[in-house]
Amino acid sequence: MKKIGIMTSGGDAPGMNAAIRAVARRAMSFGIEVYGINYGYAGLVAGDIFKMERSTVGDIINRGGTILYSARYPEFAQEEGQLKGIEQLKKFGIDALVVIGGDGSYHGALRLTEHGYNAVGLPGTIDNDIPYTDFTIGFDTAVNTVVESIDKIRDTAASHERTFVVEVMGRGAGDIALWAGVAGGADEIIVPEREFNVEQVAKNIQNLRARGKKHTIVVLAEGVMHADEFMNQLKQYGDFDARSTVLGHVQRGGSPSARDRVLASKMGAYAVDLLNEGKGGIAIGMEANELTYHNMTDLFSSKHKADLSLYDINKTLAK
Amino acid sequence: MKKIGIMTSGGDAPGMNAAIRAVARRAMSFGIEVYGINYGYAGLVAGDIFKMERSTVGDIINRGGTILYSARYPEFAQEEGQLKGIEQLKKFGIDALVVIGGDGSYHGALRLTEHGYNAVGLPGTIDNDIPYTDFTIGFDTAVNTVVESIDKIRDTAASHERTFVVEVMGRGAGDIALWAGVAGGADEIIVPEREFNVEQVAKNIQNLRARGKKHTIVVLAEGVMHADEFMNQLKQYGDFDARSTVLGHVQRGGSPSARDRVLASKMGAYAVDLLNEGKGGIAIGMEANELTYHNMTDLFSSKHKADLSLYDINKTLAK
Amino acid sequence: MKKIGIMTSGGDAPGMNAAIRAVARRAMSFGIEVYGINYGYAGLVAGDIFKMERSTVGDIINRGGTILYSARYPEFAQEEGQLKGIEQLKKFGIDALVVIGGDGSYHGALRLTEHGYNAVGLPGTIDNDIPYTDFTIGFDTAVNTVVESIDKIRDTAASHERTFVVEVMGRGAGDIALWAGVAGGADEIIVPEREFNVEQVAKNIQNLRARGKKHTIVVLAEGVMHADEFMNQLKQYGDFDARSTVLGHVQRGGSPSARDRVLASKMGAYAVDLLNEGKGGIAIGMEANELTYHNMTDLFSSKHKADLSLYDINKTLAK
Amino acid sequence: MKKIGIMTSGGDAPGMNAAIRAVARRAMSFGIEVYGINYGYAGLVAGDIFKMERSTVGDIINRGGTILYSARYPEFAQEEGQLKGIEQLKKFGIDALVVIGGDGSYHGALRLTEHGYNAVGLPGTIDNDIPYTDFTIGFDTAVNTVVESIDKIRDTAASHERTFVVEVMGRGAGDIALWAGVAGGADEIIVPEREFNVEQVAKNIQNLRARGKKHTIVVLAEGVMHADEFMNQLKQYGDFDARSTVLGHVQRGGSPSARDRVLASKMGAYAVDLLNEGKGGIAIGMEANELTYHNMTDLFSSKHKADLSLYDINKTLAK
Repeated sequence: MKKIGIMTSGGDAPGMNAAIRAVARRAMSFGIEVYGINYGYAGLVAGDIFKMERSTVGDIINRGGTILYSARYPEFAQEEGQLKGIEQLKKFGIDALVVIGGDGSYHGALRLTEHGYNAVGLPGTIDNDIPYTDFTIGFDTAVNTVVESIDKIRDTAASHERTFVVEVMGRGAGDIALWAGVAGGADEIIVPEREFNVEQVAKNIQNLRARGKKHTIVVLAEGVMHADEFMNQLKQYGDFDARSTVLGHVQRGGSPSARDRVLASKMGAYAVDLLNEGKGGIAIGMEANELTYHNMTDLFSSKHKADLSLYDINKTLAK
Repeated sequence: MKKIGIMTSGGDAPGMNAAIRAVARRAMSFGIEVYGINYGYAGLVAGDIFKMERSTVGDIINRGGTILYSARYPEFAQEEGQLKGIEQLKKFGIDALVVIGGDGSYHGALRLTEHGYNAVGLPGTIDNDIPYTDFTIGFDTAVNTVVESIDKIRDTAASHERTFVVEVMGRGAGDIALWAGVAGGADEIIVPEREFNVEQVAKNIQNLRARGKKHTIVVLAEGVMHADEFMNQLKQYGDFDARSTVLGHVQRGGSPSARDRVLASKMGAYAVDLLNEGKGGIAIGMEANELTYHNMTDLFSSKHKADLSLYDINKTLAK
Repeated sequence: MKKIGIMTSGGDAPGMNAAIRAVARRAMSFGIEVYGINYGYAGLVAGDIFKMERSTVGDIINRGGTILYSARYPEFAQEEGQLKGIEQLKKFGIDALVVIGGDGSYHGALRLTEHGYNAVGLPGTIDNDIPYTDFTIGFDTAVNTVVESIDKIRDTAASHERTFVVEVMGRGAGDIALWAGVAGGADEIIVPEREFNVEQVAKNIQNLRARGKKHTIVVLAEGVMHADEFMNQLKQYGDFDARSTVLGHVQRGGSPSARDRVLASKMGAYAVDLLNEGKGGIAIGMEANELTYHNMTDLFSSKHKADLSLYDINKTLAK
Repeated sequence: MKKIGIMTSGGDAPGMNAAIRAVARRAMSFGIEVYGINYGYAGLVAGDIFKMERSTVGDIINRGGTILYSARYPEFAQEEGQLKGIEQLKKFGIDALVVIGGDGSYHGALRLTEHGYNAVGLPGTIDNDIPYTDFTIGFDTAVNTVVESIDKIRDTAASHERTFVVEVMGRGAGDIALWAGVAGGADEIIVPEREFNVEQVAKNIQNLRARGKKHTIVVLAEGVMHADEFMNQLKQYGDFDARSTVLGHVQRGGSPSARDRVLASKMGAYAVDLLNEGKGGIAIGMEANELTYHNMTDLFSSKHKADLSLYDINKTLAK
């Protein structure tokens, strides 16, 4: 393996730059040339590719977003798009790839591997919704961003004895809501993985108030419904001087947490080692604190599981 | 003056606790007893009043919100409410008051002064929309919170070449938008104080993109319109892969900035000194870095002016 | 079990309050009365004990330090001290205890268990130097605090092309240095667990400069030597315009990170469950993301192991 | 004026990049070419000069340090050095300059003006020790960094009932200590501008403890003495379980606060406007919230005054 390419695909996540740095520096330490591919598969097809130097990845470990930019490019699902991409790999003499992104971006990586270009996937998304890894790159930062926001909302909620419904990201997964809910001391956590009953939530809030609690905070995963919708349902059961807040894209940005930087650094270095061993079509995970990898085909057929013990613990800690 | 009362009224703001601490400690240094009045005028009327000790205000200078809680209480506009409040002041032997809040809460303070209970107002609001003061307690913290959010949004905006419309607080005033817009490096700032033209904004964004700018950020004051409404108008003039974010109540919370803590400490101490001189019916300001005060009647007849030089400067810095 | 006591012992750590809240709320959810013991074993012996309510632990999950205060009290190693403590437990009718602190504080807990008062230990220290747990409560926050400081130091180091030696805490353990070093993009990590050669470090710095690197950052564990001493040794091999910074006690404080709050919440709840099962003389751990417990006697005979894979990875990422 | 140069000189400060951006963008808006001069006067003499584009200053407003690097270069005090610098200005066709730095760097700027190259100085230093300006670029960020550190130290100080001596920067000026002391709720502030008596400080700490205060924090300006020295003197008058912390270079870095970004943007734009009017040999200030300028010669003959009202207020707020 003489030349490898790196790209980031799908939604950006804090720590992607730390992963890019790790892949590049590790590869260079083996004398491998490194090429950056801008805008994911779109840039691959368009040949938006450049040679990276050590300095290209200097002072990026602490930066959010991705210096390689990212884009969604459904056309790569078609063989036509794949062949165009392979032409570019030939043109630049790139032997293998590291793709950092959500599992959606793994399909393209598998296709390239099938065409003889080994590709390894790194789980880069704030949603933590990828199987065979306990944590994805960006999740810890996003959770901390949400918790800092909840801490701020608590200030004003307590000052006015209000109820706040805080909508957080996570697409179909409740991970951000579960972790941020427990860490934020939320009174209620509403996630797609668990049934809920708005009337019961209303009763709980009333009980908390009767007990003298100055504020109530409900953390709502976006996969369930919109904050305003939930708030309106809640208001049918009483006036809680309720307010809703949608944290939005703020959750995607920011300087990565120490955890995410370390996770990205370990995974990035490991990806290069596996490519060196001639492996491809695999995705890297961190399971029980150990670096692991699995065939992408196995990922496609399995589902991520959220840590629902957090949901149960919170029932006894909030009440 | 033997006993003074403190209350926070209207929307809470970071730094209110620092102001409470300053009023309490300064008064105690003169041997004056200090009483905390919970929930603003509502608590005054209800007699939700307690004696404060030095320790009551210990370790609160760094806390957001207000330990005295806040509430809106329109009933205090009626003499009936005022007389009930005065009964409570008599009952607790309180001679004078410090009211921390927006200028709305100054009306009640003026009424109490007219009834013989000197009251001094402190400008506590994130909106910075109070006349005769360059800065209100809470404004600097809110602006920093918004800027940190814009910094995070820029990460993801740059990664995807998107346009973001960021709605910030400020009620009728554009101050938060102006300061956060300049400090956040916004490409456009939309405030109530200045005309705007969505088509022109769209043209500017197109020019920036043509020039290779990876992202565009529009900071929109809530007093103009909602972020979604603005975004929809924008989309009539082209597809900018636009997203909207409403920062919401996060802006009201958080540990106060150094500026807000110092401003609150100076104003709080000054309020006690003025009450000691037998003054009342006045509001404190910080003008040209000097502590000042004005009759509340003068405030009601004048209007706060935002620093629109920021608007003009930004035109040349963003483009 | 009708009444349990909680204390924090040894050095304070961010997340101790989250653990106190979790223990108290979990116990109350089972109808168990909860007593707070101030100042660790010193307060136990002195009877500085009070009944906790739900509200006692309200809004503390986000606060650094410990609301129960902490102290070192070597006298508790003597049976005399222990018997005095037991008298107090009898007096308050406390059946069992949760002790949050370093493994030093586990000895007292074991003695109490031997006397018939089941005690469970929770690993609360920023140093991460406790066996049978991958992470201690406070470690993640401390690492993030150090990384934020390194990010700031990098700004000024890069502006002046300087070399910085940053001394971090950890007592005999290199964990903070290893995690913060990798996450901070340190060029060199010096820890007690690994040999080092100052002359070699100097050579590496010279090579990095020859390669055009604008700054070099050395993260030094306090267990190795003092920053100034290291810097002086370094200067024997060349002028690197070196500066030293000792981060100091700032590392012990701050609002706990989301990880530490979740870890503390899980461990706190688990401690109550184990006491409910009649267990004692055990310490709780988080191993491979699973809650575990071990006999304190086993802890005393084993040693914590730092993740030295971080050391090796950094060699290839920094160069 | 067709071409201007920008440099940063002396110690770096947060907000220098925001100032560089403002100068560059403002000048470009007038069609003026902008040249970056690396490493201050050293780079000017060496001809380390490059043409800046709009994108050169893109996404730097939120970054600490200076993208133009900084260096001390005493040789520029000699005419020989100045003439070398002028040769470079001629070679690149640079007509005028903006120098961002401490007042030390203004001397070189004045010399260049005398040689016919108008130079305008911007006050860039965290120390706030420059006359004719209420605030320097970087001061507000440094104060906030110190206050965040004091907040963290308070956590651990309160948990252990300790006394902390926190040494902060400021060279000969007490501004950082005064602002951070008041904002941090320090019990004592020790600055060069005011006499102090260690025995009296010790007495005050004893009184605070007698009154039940859990911790005491002394903020010490580096211009007075070293933290350890102060602590040792303090210990002569009693055991306060005292600890010292030297915040060090962390104070120089970090993303600039909103205030510093706005101050830098206003001053940077103003500097270009003044050069456009043919002015030189002047330094810009912000006095009473208004942009001002003064002849550098006037600055050299006058002294910065710290806001000592903060010292007096704190006496009544801390006790």
